[in-house]
Amino acid sequence: MKHLEEQMKQGIAYIEEKLEAFMPAQEQLPPVIFEAMRYSLFAGGKRLRPMMLLAACEAVGGKKEDGVPFACAVEMIHTYSLIHDDLPAMDNDDYRRGKRTNHKVFGEDMAILAGDGLLHYAMEVMAEACYANPNKKTTGAMQAIAHGAGIHGMLIGQVADVFYEGKPLTADTLEFIHIHKTAAMIRAALKAGALLGGATEETAEKFALAGEKIGVAFQIVDDILDVTSTMEELGKPIHSDEKNEKITYVTLYGIEKSKEIANTLSNEAIAIWEEFGEKGNFLKNLTQYLTKRTY
Amino acid sequence: MKHLEEQMKQGIAYIEEKLEAFMPAQEQLPPVIFEAMRYSLFAGGKRLRPMMLLAACEAVGGKKEDGVPFACAVEMIHTYSLIHDDLPAMDNDDYRRGKRTNHKVFGEDMAILAGDGLLHYAMEVMAEACYANPNKKTTGAMQAIAHGAGIHGMLIGQVADVFYEGKPLTADTLEFIHIHKTAAMIRAALKAGALLGGATEETAEKFALAGEKIGVAFQIVDDILDVTSTMEELGKPIHSDEKNEKITYVTLYGIEKSKEIANTLSNEAIAIWEEFGEKGNFLKNLTQYLTKRTY
Repeated sequence: MKHLEEQMKQGIAYIEEKLEAFMPAQEQLPPVIFEAMRYSLFAGGKRLRPMMLLAACEAVGGKKEDGVPFACAVEMIHTYSLIHDDLPAMDNDDYRRGKRTNHKVFGEDMAILAGDGLLHYAMEVMAEACYANPNKKTTGAMQAIAHGAGIHGMLIGQVADVFYEGKPLTADTLEFIHIHKTAAMIRAALKAGALLGGATEETAEKFALAGEKIGVAFQIVDDILDVTSTMEELGKPIHSDEKNEKITYVTLYGIEKSKEIANTLSNEAIAIWEEFGEKGNFLKNLTQYLTKRTY
Repeated sequence: MKHLEEQMKQGIAYIEEKLEAFMPAQEQLPPVIFEAMRYSLFAGGKRLRPMMLLAACEAVGGKKEDGVPFACAVEMIHTYSLIHDDLPAMDNDDYRRGKRTNHKVFGEDMAILAGDGLLHYAMEVMAEACYANPNKKTTGAMQAIAHGAGIHGMLIGQVADVFYEGKPLTADTLEFIHIHKTAAMIRAALKAGALLGGATEETAEKFALAGEKIGVAFQIVDDILDVTSTMEELGKPIHSDEKNEKITYVTLYGIEKSKEIANTLSNEAIAIWEEFGEKGNFLKNLTQYLTKRTY
C-alpha cells in the first residue's frame, strides 16, 4: 500500500492546487465570506470524492484535465454539507478534523452563508464548464453530481439522519441513510468521471454501482472501527456511536456479520474495477484501502 | 394597467402549474422535507423572476416552453434564499407574506435543509434541461442563473446585508447590496430568458442591464413606500426601516432625490424594452408597474 499512499498524496496535492486556482480572490467586499469558505475547504480533507472522479475519468481513457472543474465542484459540495451538518441546529459540533467548526469561528450566520456559497459556487463552476463545452459528457456529469447531491441523494440522507435521530431504526432505514448520505456522492463522482472520460452510459452505470457499494462498505467499516479501534489508531474519539445511542450496522448485526457485509460489498466493487485491467488498478487499490481498513 | 394585471395573474397560474409538475411527490421517506420545501414554494409569491424569464424568452422570438425548467429553477432559488434569510441566525423573522416562516413550522434544522434542498433541486432541474439539449442556449442560461445567484450575485448581497447590519453604510455599499441582493437574480432571469429564446450575447446583455436597473429601482421604491405609504396600501407594516434603524436610499438621499433616482433607472430600462417594439410591451408594462408604484 506504500505505492497507493504515495499516489493519494500526489492526488491530494493536485486537487488542492486546482481548488486554490478556482477559489476567487478575497478582494470582493465583504471578504469574511471568502475566508469562511476557504477555512473549511482547505481544512485538510482526504479529497476522496474528487480523487475518484479524476481516477474514473482516466480509467476509461479520458484526460484528467477534463474532470478538474467537476472534481473541484464535488469537493465544494462535500465541504458545504459538512459545514451545514455541524451547525447548532443540526449536529451542533464544535470540532471537525481537529479544527473548530465553521460556525464556531465565523458565527452561525456566516457559516450558513459559507455553506450556501460553496454549493452556489460548485453549481457555477460546473455551469461554466458545461457552457465552454456543451455536450452530453459535461452536462451528463453535472446532472449526475446534481442528482447525487440533492433531494434524491446526499441531502435526503442527511434529512433522514436528522429525522430518525433518537427514533427506532430498521435495517432498511439505516441502509437508506448510508446509501444516500454517504454513498450517493461517491456514486455520483465515479459516474461523472466516467462520463467525462467518454464512457458509454452502460459503463458509467457500472462505475456508479461500484461507488454505491464502496460508499456503504466505507460507512459500515467506520461503524466497526468505532467499536474495535483504539483512539490512537483512529485519530478520533471511539465509542462515539454507543455514547450517542446511535443505531449502526454493528448494533443491528453484530461485528462479525457487519464485517461480512462490508467485505462482500467491497469485493463486488473490486470485481468491477478488475474488468478494466491495468487501468482499474488505482480504483481497485483505493477501494481495498477504504473498505478493508484494519479491524 | 387592468390588462397587465390580468396577464400577471395568468403568468402566476402558469408558473405555479409548472412548479407543481416539477416538484417530486411526497412518497419518499422522510416526507417532511418535501412538505417543508412545498410550504414555502407555494406560499403565494408574485413569481416575478420566472415571469420575467419567460417574457424575455418570448420577447426575442423564443418559445415559452423552452424557458420553463429555468423559470422554475429561478423561483426555487428565490424561495430558498427567503427561507435562509428568515432563519433565527439571520433576520429571525416569524412571518413572511402573512404565514409563519419555514423554521417556525418545521424547525430550524428542517428549514435549513429545505432551503438547501430547493437550491439543490434548482441545480438538478437545470442540469437535466441542459443534458436534454446540450447547447449554448441552455448552458448559457444555467451559467447566467448560477452566476446571478451565487457568490458574485445574490449571495454576496445577503452576506453584505448581514455583515453591515448596525454599521455605518456608504451610498456605494448600499448600492452594492441592492445590485447583488435584489437585482442580480432579476438580471440573471432576464438574461437567461433572452439566451433561451435565441438572443445574441449582445442582446442578452441588454436584457441583463435592464434587469439590473429594474432591480435597483424596485428596491428604492420599496424603501420610499416604507416611509410614505399606509399599512393598508402596502399590506405590510410600514416604517419598518426606521424602526430597525436601517440605512436606505431615503435616509441617505431623502424622498425626492430617491424618487428621481428610481425614475431614471426605470426610464432607462423602459427605453431598452422599447427597442423591441410590440414584443417588449409586456416587459415595459411590468417595469412601469414595479418601479412606479404609487407614492
